[in-house]
Parts: sequence; C-alpha cells; structure tokens
Amino acid sequence: MSVLVVGSVALDSVETPFGKADNVLGGSATFFSASASLLTAVQLVGVVGSDYPMDQLAPLAMRGVDLAGLECTEGESFRWRGRYRHDLNSAETLETRLGVFSHFRPKIPEQFRRAPFVFLGNIDPRLQLDVLRQVERPKLVACDTMNFWIESRRADLLELLAHVDILTLNDGEARQLTEEVNLVKAARWIMKHGPKHVIIKKGEHGAFMFSPSTVFYAPAYPLEEVFDPTGAGDAFAGGFIGYLARSGDLSEPNLKRAVVYGSAMGSFAVERFSIQRFLEIGRQEIAARVREFHRLVTFEEDLLA
Amino acid sequence: MSVLVVGSVALDSVETPFGKADNVLGGSATFFSASASLLTAVQLVGVVGSDYPMDQLAPLAMRGVDLAGLECTEGESFRWRGRYRHDLNSAETLETRLGVFSHFRPKIPEQFRRAPFVFLGNIDPRLQLDVLRQVERPKLVACDTMNFWIESRRADLLELLAHVDILTLNDGEARQLTEEVNLVKAARWIMKHGPKHVIIKKGEHGAFMFSPSTVFYAPAYPLEEVFDPTGAGDAFAGGFIGYLARSGDLSEPNLKRAVVYGSAMGSFAVERFSIQRFLEIGRQEIAARVREFHRLVTFEEDLLA
Repeated sequence: MSVLVVGSVALDSVETPFGKADNVLGGSATFFSASASLLTAVQLVGVVGSDYPMDQLAPLAMRGVDLAGLECTEGESFRWRGRYRHDLNSAETLETRLGVFSHFRPKIPEQFRRAPFVFLGNIDPRLQLDVLRQVERPKLVACDTMNFWIESRRADLLELLAHVDILTLNDGEARQLTEEVNLVKAARWIMKHGPKHVIIKKGEHGAFMFSPSTVFYAPAYPLEEVFDPTGAGDAFAGGFIGYLARSGDLSEPNLKRAVVYGSAMGSFAVERFSIQRFLEIGRQEIAARVREFHRLVTFEEDLLA
Repeated sequence: MSVLVVGSVALDSVETPFGKADNVLGGSATFFSASASLLTAVQLVGVVGSDYPMDQLAPLAMRGVDLAGLECTEGESFRWRGRYRHDLNSAETLETRLGVFSHFRPKIPEQFRRAPFVFLGNIDPRLQLDVLRQVERPKLVACDTMNFWIESRRADLLELLAHVDILTLNDGEARQLTEEVNLVKAARWIMKHGPKHVIIKKGEHGAFMFSPSTVFYAPAYPLEEVFDPTGAGDAFAGGFIGYLARSGDLSEPNLKRAVVYGSAMGSFAVERFSIQRFLEIGRQEIAARVREFHRLVTFEEDLLA
C-alpha cells in the first residue's frame, strides 16, 4: 500500500566533525521518502522554489516516489544551515531561511487522496489538520512535531492529536508537550489525548513505542562511524510507516518489527550526508541490518528463573 | 559458586525530587552484595568505622552475604551526601568524608581466597591489583572504576586491565579512559588492553556488552517512578556477576542473559532509597522483571525481508 507524506523539502548545509556538505537535499519529506521508498510506494506533497535542483530528486522518482504533489513556485527554497560538534545528538542551527516554505499550503492531488497511510511531517499543526481534511479516511495517520509548534500552536496540536493514530516525537519534545519528566507518564498523557501509539525517539539512545498495554524498545544501532545525524528521525519514520504500509498489517508484532525497520533506516541515514546512503542500499542491506538488530537484543529466557 | 566483592561500605545521605534519606546503607560493595545475594553466595571485603549500624547488615548476612571480610576499625565510616535534581542521570556530590576508607587495605580472609568469581568494586586500582595478588586464579575477574582513578592512577589502571576479564564502566568514563568519543571504538580500545568483555553502562539509556565479535544491548527498564538512582551501577554488576556465578556458565548466550539480570537488578535499585528494594524482592519478582525485559525488546524477524 502507498504512503502519503506531507512535509518540508529543503536544501541543507551541514558541518560535522567529519566534513561538510553544502546545499544538499534535506527536509522531513525528503528523508522520509528516501527511506520509505525502499519499502513501498510514496506520494510526496511539499513545496520548493525555482532554485531547487529537481534533477537530484530523479533517483527518488525512479524508485517510486510520486512527485506530483511537489509544488514548484517562484522564490527561494527552504534552506537550513547547521553544525554538529562532538556531541552528535544535538544540532546547532546557524541559519534558517524558510523561503517559499513560509507560504506552504499543502494541496493534496486528487490521485493521492485515498492513500491508506499518511505521514504528517513536522509542519504547522494547522496545516497538518488541513491535510487530514483533504484525505479520505486513511487506514493509519502518523504525525511528527517539534518544540516550536508545542510552544506556539499548542491548542491546534492538541486538536490534531485527536485525529492521529501514532505520534512520533523526541524525548525532549515529549517532556515539553506533557510537562512530565518521566517518559512512561509522558506517553500515557499523549495516548489520553488521541494517539493509540506514541513513539519517543531518543537519538543515539534508541526509541520506545508505547501502546495501550505494552512498551517496545529498539536501540540505535551502535555504529562505529556516525557521519551526519541530520534526518535520522524522519528516516526512522519512513522505515516505520513504510514497513507498515508494505505489509498492511497493524498487529502488535508487526508494529514492533516496524519500529526495528525504523531504527535500521535511522542508522543508515547517519552514515552519509543527506539522503546519500539510501541511494546506495537495497533490500539486502536492510534485511542484514534488521538481522543485526535481532542479534543485538535477543536473549533466551532462563527456564530456571 | 560464590562471588567475592571488594569495595566501599558507606553511609549515604541522599536527596531526590521525591524525598530524602539520611545515613542509609550505601557503597559499591553494599549495593553489589544486596543485588548478587539474591542469586548466589557472596563474600564481602570492606571496611567500616565504629559508628556503622552493623545491625542493618543483618538481613544481608541472613541471605548469604559472608561478612567475615568486613573490617571494623576505630574511626568514622565513609559518608557520602548527594542530591539529584530532575535529571536523575547525574548526582551532585555535596559532601564526601572518606573516614576509615581512606586507609583501606583489603585483606582477603583465607577462606575467601578461592572464590571462583571476583568483583573489584570502584576503589584505587593499586588496591584492586593487590586483591588479585591475594586470590587464587579465579574463574572470572570483573572490575569497575571511575573518573577519579582514570585521571590520577592511569598507569595502575592499565596494569590492572591486563588481569581483568570484564571491565564495567559508564559511557563518560569509557570516553575519558580511551579518548574515543565513539563507544564502539572505545570498547575496542579497552579490549585491546586486556578485558575480553566490556560493559558500558549508560544509566537510564541502558547498557552495552562488547565482546570480541559481538555486541549485546539491554535497555534500562522504563519505570514510571525512578526514586533514587544511587547504586544502580553496582546493583547491575551484582545481578550480572551473581547470575554468572550462580550458573557457572560463561558461554555467550549466558553472558547475554547475565546482562539482562544486571539490568533487572539496576531497575530494582532505583525504586527505593538505599538497598531497600532488594530486601523486599525474591526470585519471583526477579524472574517476572526478566520476562518483562524479554517482552520489551523481542521481535520476530520478518521472513519476507
């Protein structure tokens, strides 16, 4: 089944202790699509300016990312410039130029409106709500958000949560949204406000999926070289939703597997700048990494205990 | 099989956002013993002053902690006073009074010298080395250390590592010791200096066990109430070594299970002040928590992948 993603399509300039990259493909919808399209068909809705290097999106289009919803308007594309120091867990934003993204009003093309899986990337919750008004009862709606919206659009965000099946956010954002320091309590607070499942991402410390009566956890893969953490969270979401959409199975065991696919895709994202790694790998590499996750955490229970 | 532990036996005064406790049982050997003795026989070597409330150690003695190596000398016991704020991951030390611990020279009683399992709690590496000179070829030697010794006794610590099978330390200490930011590289550095296995503890973010050709990871259990993190690392070590000693099995699958037992014991430690929780639980509670760890991380691999 296909996934509709709505989010940013940007140009990133990133500096890490290991190198720098200028004006490379970035944005939540881009990372999500690069990741999810390795598992299923993706329909992208976003906006870019006339300066966007459209030819660089060709590899994604060839792999099944339908770009019919990518509006190209007069003006400059969304640009982000950031730096990571040795603590690769937090980016320092040096510059943000929203460009045409500041006037983004998602228009879902007619042929995308029946997408069974919908991922609302991190944009204004009013726009996320507006997307939901344009689609026809999806099988699953997941959304992401960030500190900025939690602060400035709290009421809209709470309204949105009532219409969302899965919320993904990082640990700091979960604490900020719920005013609970403890993540178990934070997750419970969120589930009371709508979502059946909450995924709390902790960067290099892995991710929790909270469900009404269970908790599941997947570590981040212990890589020897973390090159650039940009986009890991959206790549995670792409792996997670992409895997669910591919199988169409929303059972608990499949949701757990989907979290592992998300973690696997997050681990690929950080191995190169931009979406580069996703253009190098295929299902073989993904399956191998998922097997490594299995080895990483699996233990046999002790029957004597 | 029995475990010999050498380390501090202290009185802690702790303040957390949830309450405070004054002059309660603390110290690495105490937490280790309280945890390990739920799984196997423990022989404790340490020192206390004449002010120590020996009667409070009775529950441990009754459970199989042999206190024949606990020297009681004229003077004040080791006292630590600390505070945790909302970030329960790091303690703020308000006061340390070493008392009789500053002259501690571990003397291993004759009847302890054939202990097959030895845990060297966090003390001066010169003393840890001295303990190894007093024991007869144990089946397994594990040790812990801290930033203070890494800084002030680096040469001794490196000499010690050559005689140790397993080093446990936290992520910050691993980075400090090895000067590697990346934990995979840090672990490899440590294994080059002696230990066959390295356990890197990340507090609320779980623990990695690195072995020559594998990595294993266990999360910290997502508790709704973390009451007091003091001693969690030593309780982890107690669960880990206690489980290995109980089974006498050093195979890779059993080492993995031991890490989970360590994590389970760490999760109990933080539920109450001091060693309180270990006096309330038995094998049933431990087995139940280990099963919860199993549910927390286990996923079925996807045969289609």
